[in-house]
Amino acid sequence: MIITDTLLTSFLKTRSDSEEICAPLEIEDYVIQPIVDVSPPKWHLGHTTWFFEEFILAKYAKDYKRFHPEYAYVFNSYYESIGKRVIRTNRGNLSRPTVSDVYEYRDYVTSHLQALLEENEDKEIFKLVEIGIHHEKQHQELLLTDIKFILGNNPLFPKYNDTFTENSASNISSKYITVESGVYEIGYKGTDFCYDNELGVHKVLLNEYSISNKLITNKEYLEFIDDNGYKNSLLWHAEAWDWIQNGDIKSPLYWYTIDKQRYQYTLQGLKELNPEAPVTHISYYEAFAFSQWKGQRLPTEFEWEVAQLNFKWGERWEWTESAYSPYPNYKKAPGALGEYNGKFMVNQKVLRGGSVATPQNHTRPTYRNFFHPQLRWQFTGLRLVKDN
Amino acid sequence: MIITDTLLTSFLKTRSDSEEICAPLEIEDYVIQPIVDVSPPKWHLGHTTWFFEEFILAKYAKDYKRFHPEYAYVFNSYYESIGKRVIRTNRGNLSRPTVSDVYEYRDYVTSHLQALLEENEDKEIFKLVEIGIHHEKQHQELLLTDIKFILGNNPLFPKYNDTFTENSASNISSKYITVESGVYEIGYKGTDFCYDNELGVHKVLLNEYSISNKLITNKEYLEFIDDNGYKNSLLWHAEAWDWIQNGDIKSPLYWYTIDKQRYQYTLQGLKELNPEAPVTHISYYEAFAFSQWKGQRLPTEFEWEVAQLNFKWGERWEWTESAYSPYPNYKKAPGALGEYNGKFMVNQKVLRGGSVATPQNHTRPTYRNFFHPQLRWQFTGLRLVKDN
Amino acid sequence: MIITDTLLTSFLKTRSDSEEICAPLEIEDYVIQPIVDVSPPKWHLGHTTWFFEEFILAKYAKDYKRFHPEYAYVFNSYYESIGKRVIRTNRGNLSRPTVSDVYEYRDYVTSHLQALLEENEDKEIFKLVEIGIHHEKQHQELLLTDIKFILGNNPLFPKYNDTFTENSASNISSKYITVESGVYEIGYKGTDFCYDNELGVHKVLLNEYSISNKLITNKEYLEFIDDNGYKNSLLWHAEAWDWIQNGDIKSPLYWYTIDKQRYQYTLQGLKELNPEAPVTHISYYEAFAFSQWKGQRLPTEFEWEVAQLNFKWGERWEWTESAYSPYPNYKKAPGALGEYNGKFMVNQKVLRGGSVATPQNHTRPTYRNFFHPQLRWQFTGLRLVKDN
Amino acid sequence: MIITDTLLTSFLKTRSDSEEICAPLEIEDYVIQPIVDVSPPKWHLGHTTWFFEEFILAKYAKDYKRFHPEYAYVFNSYYESIGKRVIRTNRGNLSRPTVSDVYEYRDYVTSHLQALLEENEDKEIFKLVEIGIHHEKQHQELLLTDIKFILGNNPLFPKYNDTFTENSASNISSKYITVESGVYEIGYKGTDFCYDNELGVHKVLLNEYSISNKLITNKEYLEFIDDNGYKNSLLWHAEAWDWIQNGDIKSPLYWYTIDKQRYQYTLQGLKELNPEAPVTHISYYEAFAFSQWKGQRLPTEFEWEVAQLNFKWGERWEWTESAYSPYPNYKKAPGALGEYNGKFMVNQKVLRGGSVATPQNHTRPTYRNFFHPQLRWQFTGLRLVKDN
Repeated sequence: MIITDTLLTSFLKTRSDSEEICAPLEIEDYVIQPIVDVSPPKWHLGHTTWFFEEFILAKYAKDYKRFHPEYAYVFNSYYESIGKRVIRTNRGNLSRPTVSDVYEYRDYVTSHLQALLEENEDKEIFKLVEIGIHHEKQHQELLLTDIKFILGNNPLFPKYNDTFTENSASNISSKYITVESGVYEIGYKGTDFCYDNELGVHKVLLNEYSISNKLITNKEYLEFIDDNGYKNSLLWHAEAWDWIQNGDIKSPLYWYTIDKQRYQYTLQGLKELNPEAPVTHISYYEAFAFSQWKGQRLPTEFEWEVAQLNFKWGERWEWTESAYSPYPNYKKAPGALGEYNGKFMVNQKVLRGGSVATPQNHTRPTYRNFFHPQLRWQFTGLRLVKDN
Repeated sequence: MIITDTLLTSFLKTRSDSEEICAPLEIEDYVIQPIVDVSPPKWHLGHTTWFFEEFILAKYAKDYKRFHPEYAYVFNSYYESIGKRVIRTNRGNLSRPTVSDVYEYRDYVTSHLQALLEENEDKEIFKLVEIGIHHEKQHQELLLTDIKFILGNNPLFPKYNDTFTENSASNISSKYITVESGVYEIGYKGTDFCYDNELGVHKVLLNEYSISNKLITNKEYLEFIDDNGYKNSLLWHAEAWDWIQNGDIKSPLYWYTIDKQRYQYTLQGLKELNPEAPVTHISYYEAFAFSQWKGQRLPTEFEWEVAQLNFKWGERWEWTESAYSPYPNYKKAPGALGEYNGKFMVNQKVLRGGSVATPQNHTRPTYRNFFHPQLRWQFTGLRLVKDN
Repeated sequence: MIITDTLLTSFLKTRSDSEEICAPLEIEDYVIQPIVDVSPPKWHLGHTTWFFEEFILAKYAKDYKRFHPEYAYVFNSYYESIGKRVIRTNRGNLSRPTVSDVYEYRDYVTSHLQALLEENEDKEIFKLVEIGIHHEKQHQELLLTDIKFILGNNPLFPKYNDTFTENSASNISSKYITVESGVYEIGYKGTDFCYDNELGVHKVLLNEYSISNKLITNKEYLEFIDDNGYKNSLLWHAEAWDWIQNGDIKSPLYWYTIDKQRYQYTLQGLKELNPEAPVTHISYYEAFAFSQWKGQRLPTEFEWEVAQLNFKWGERWEWTESAYSPYPNYKKAPGALGEYNGKFMVNQKVLRGGSVATPQNHTRPTYRNFFHPQLRWQFTGLRLVKDN
Repeated sequence: MIITDTLLTSFLKTRSDSEEICAPLEIEDYVIQPIVDVSPPKWHLGHTTWFFEEFILAKYAKDYKRFHPEYAYVFNSYYESIGKRVIRTNRGNLSRPTVSDVYEYRDYVTSHLQALLEENEDKEIFKLVEIGIHHEKQHQELLLTDIKFILGNNPLFPKYNDTFTENSASNISSKYITVESGVYEIGYKGTDFCYDNELGVHKVLLNEYSISNKLITNKEYLEFIDDNGYKNSLLWHAEAWDWIQNGDIKSPLYWYTIDKQRYQYTLQGLKELNPEAPVTHISYYEAFAFSQWKGQRLPTEFEWEVAQLNFKWGERWEWTESAYSPYPNYKKAPGALGEYNGKFMVNQKVLRGGSVATPQNHTRPTYRNFFHPQLRWQFTGLRLVKDN
């Protein structure tokens, strides 16, 4: 059956992609959690597996025997309604299950799920597998950024590999694209997969605005630093100002100055800063302060979605001014799967676009990513808007 | 000159109103800061005075001599560009200046400002005095809620006075008012005073919705508690769930159970809970969880503003679903006064309405109040919306 | 009866002395608790009163009616076996009972206790009153040092009064007194009052040592600072080094440098540092590091007790090398009074001597004071020992 | 040359012993640091190696090239005078160097040191190597207890191996041995290796006392628990009481109750509690509270040292009442090696004896171990003393 075939292919590819991302790692790299936001790679590999076991195999696979009775406890992330979870700050304190155990667990679940798909035509299952695939793709992006954090905060600055390119310079020239005021439709209208938070297609009224066709570069960001941007309290939110004081923040994450030369840690190791590459690893707070300094502003997520056909995007997740909130008529899925998105809709900012770490076909113009405003370990970036 | 007269009258009344609010206090009550969000009453009295001194007298009053060279340091709240402030958590560690010193300071500044107004026709000054008056009115509301916290967390439960009524039962019957979908105008269009965050009149597109004409009552909230609302993780945001676990939160602030009877601390002292009064002292998190439990939702601030003519409001600040963000074309005032609103536009939720603690004429349909989602010491409340 | 008369006189004088210490205060000064180790003066006044009420009147005064049912809760310090106490960090959050209430409470308890003493000859009561008197005298010392902290950390540097002298220069010349090795007796052998921690007279064997007849002066301590004493990790305990790094400690408490001139906050206000006065407000950590820098050491408490007849003491509590431990045959009093000393015998260092803040007749050669090694708000000092 | 031979043999055995201790580990177990007191096993392996490199090879081996320029930074523990160290709480955040890198580092340093020893007769070097050997033996003990913590706090309760026995029951009958009052000599008088903190042989005067020939057993400790020992504040130090309240402490570390049966995690995995085995993994606070409950007390370190010939010891480190302080005439080694012991002589309690985790020949009657009073992850135990 065609649908199953495609789904199965997609499922198997996703499973092997996750493992390929981890291929350059040493076993030790799989284990640690240097900050609370970064999870150990072996946890990602186990958690995405548990998702398929918990929500599909345990329910739909006849006589399914769980791989290990305690793994649900170890690999649950935040599904409070499913049971007690390992507190997020403790994930890096678990040396067991080992990496090898986790790969066995993966194989076990992958093959059972493959069997289930091959003998089954239940649309409900297909839908859940699709969610599981997209869930795992999200974690692939986190895997890359978490690996970068694990390696990039090590005093030995080990590299991930020699091929992952994250800082291409763009040679297009900068200009502002004007969007006329009017009523626009927002939200996902297609028939492929999307998350519940993109649904509820609805209209919004926008004023005229002009949006840059290009991301802010390292060079432009350096001008902000050199103009004492980090020292001028008037540019910053009150909470941001406390954050830069307490954390002694003076530049984006992963920037180092050695003998007066600026370097940036990348997945290929420590490299001289490329002035023409788009700035990355900045918080919303920094993106906002930069925009204030420029006398411009960040786009709302609606302005971004309406304008996006007119510029290239996908290298950096772009901070927007929009707080992460439900769309009109947002419906949470019932039960534990309803915990996927809705419960995070407070105190976070929406990012739009995608990044060099995003798996192929995993983002789209309506995709809504979200993070707390101080977080920087994703490949975040910044695009400006002018009012006319 | 008429304008000055009115302004002067308004200024003098505002100054004496603040002092009247404090009249029932013992000197000791003026001094303490039991939690970071609550400031000592003498700090409010000094800070509102400093505002007039710093932004008006020091600039416009000829040969003005500051009352005390260190008071700018002691009474600055968060104007980073003005100078080093006493860190907010330290306000309760200052026994000096004494309450009596602060009242002298008030008299000194009030009389100098009165003199300035009487001999001056500078519109710029009038505008600043107007801001200062509204600033002080905002602090009058905080004074009342901070006093409530100071007294209500004392094991002796002292009362504030015998007359302040905060829990009237409403006898109107509950119904939902339907607002048709369409384009509506938002923001302040009048000619009187408003804050910069209300400006930038703009249009928004709303779907049809139905909004309750009545606030949720204690009785309704008790049903939520009795139905284990505080124990069902699916109703809560992830951060809210952590908050109720860590703080062992099981009811609104100021609720006490003694011999199985529910009591509420009020400014008149400890009283039996009035089931028909609107619930108050709840966080956004609790308001949201309640709405989820009801299968309904909170209004956006736009929905509230459009519908507000159709219901009575003003007893409780009402939590909305809207994050506090700038309106289109929002312009921050230049310099330190620009720190008034804009720098708080992250991680806060908008409240609309006003409360029993709001000074007369201090709120209006476009007024945007804002607090962090976990805060409860204001007279907050809750009104529901249904989609049609 | 003579004993009662003396005891009553002593009781009444002690009660009035506490109030005299507070006479220069403003009401606001009675209320705050800027750090956890410093208690609000009104708490000291109430707590010493509660001690007489709880341990004597409630037990021995016929038909005694407590002044207020909740005061036992508010004014208990750490007697866990008596009931729930106000957590020490919360004492500064209580504006009620007011200062005036506390003075009424004092009068009530003082007069009831006076009546009890006048009509009673029970030795058990006399003994408890004696403990209560000494307990209150201890708090008189804390009152003075807590008041100094409250005023000395205020940006306005208010003075306490014009007469309290804390920094007299000594004009004796420095020399070392040698004590021969031998067996010495330690502990209180008299018949007057002493604390349980001084009892258990016992012998100790001491090596020969030489002890200075003079406390280290500000001038000597400045040499240590100027020689980078605070920057040389080899002089410090590991925990001390963390403490000076985290707290950015560079000099004793209350030292300020204004226009390159050293000042010290004193109870008479801010004064130029007197180089010949004994250094004070140093932690054990600093005393130890200074001794290391000098190539000498601190005395043990036994060395101090044996040598003390040979030098003048009483201006500064002197840090010793001895950890606070029970003497051989130490017996804790039964019940709540047993909580007085024994439960603190861990993680504290013994200080010997007394200070300018110690009430008359409240110290003696065997008196053992004790504080955590990082604390500095007492009038602490430093005397050196050389081995021969 | 004989001395070198013995030293070399001892050196090589010590090096291989450390690696044998780690042989049962998975690579993942080498990496994590679940609490600040527990270091990752690979850190222990690297740090003991760095000690030989830093203090011997770098100084005495001609043309010695360090294995890696950054390892001094990664593997320094607390030698502040040597350079910036990786903060102790960050050790578990380092996935690199890998375990395999660390073993290579070990081989490199071991073989260079072997070469140095074979061609050298410098007594200074011999002395330093001897210190390095004993330093590594100390870390062998920590390796075992840290491994136990890493595995014993994992929800899967993996075992270390099947042979490590930690809970033998003693079949000797309990009795008290009386030691007469008198003057006794304390400190190391032999000619073999000892630490600087054991030197300064000196006399102490002891009162008569009786000390148990047997450690307290699990059975006896259970009686304390069953008699509400953890709920009676009068038995505890004030800081201990806060500690058990805040940490919800109700039994020794590693005790679990499953279906009303008591279990203990051991290096052989989860086992039923053996009532006749000596209690272990208790803090000083618990040892003290137990002694109070029994109406007895802990020995001082001097009492223990004088009496130790009369009983069997070595299975448990035994808490004493003595604070860790310098002996009379204690001399700190100059420079960084002086940081070995002296800088920890505050806020710690002395333990005497040794434990099942102590390497052969690593303890002796004068050996002084020391830990903070709340720590429990060592194989600690408890022996009582009665005064006569």
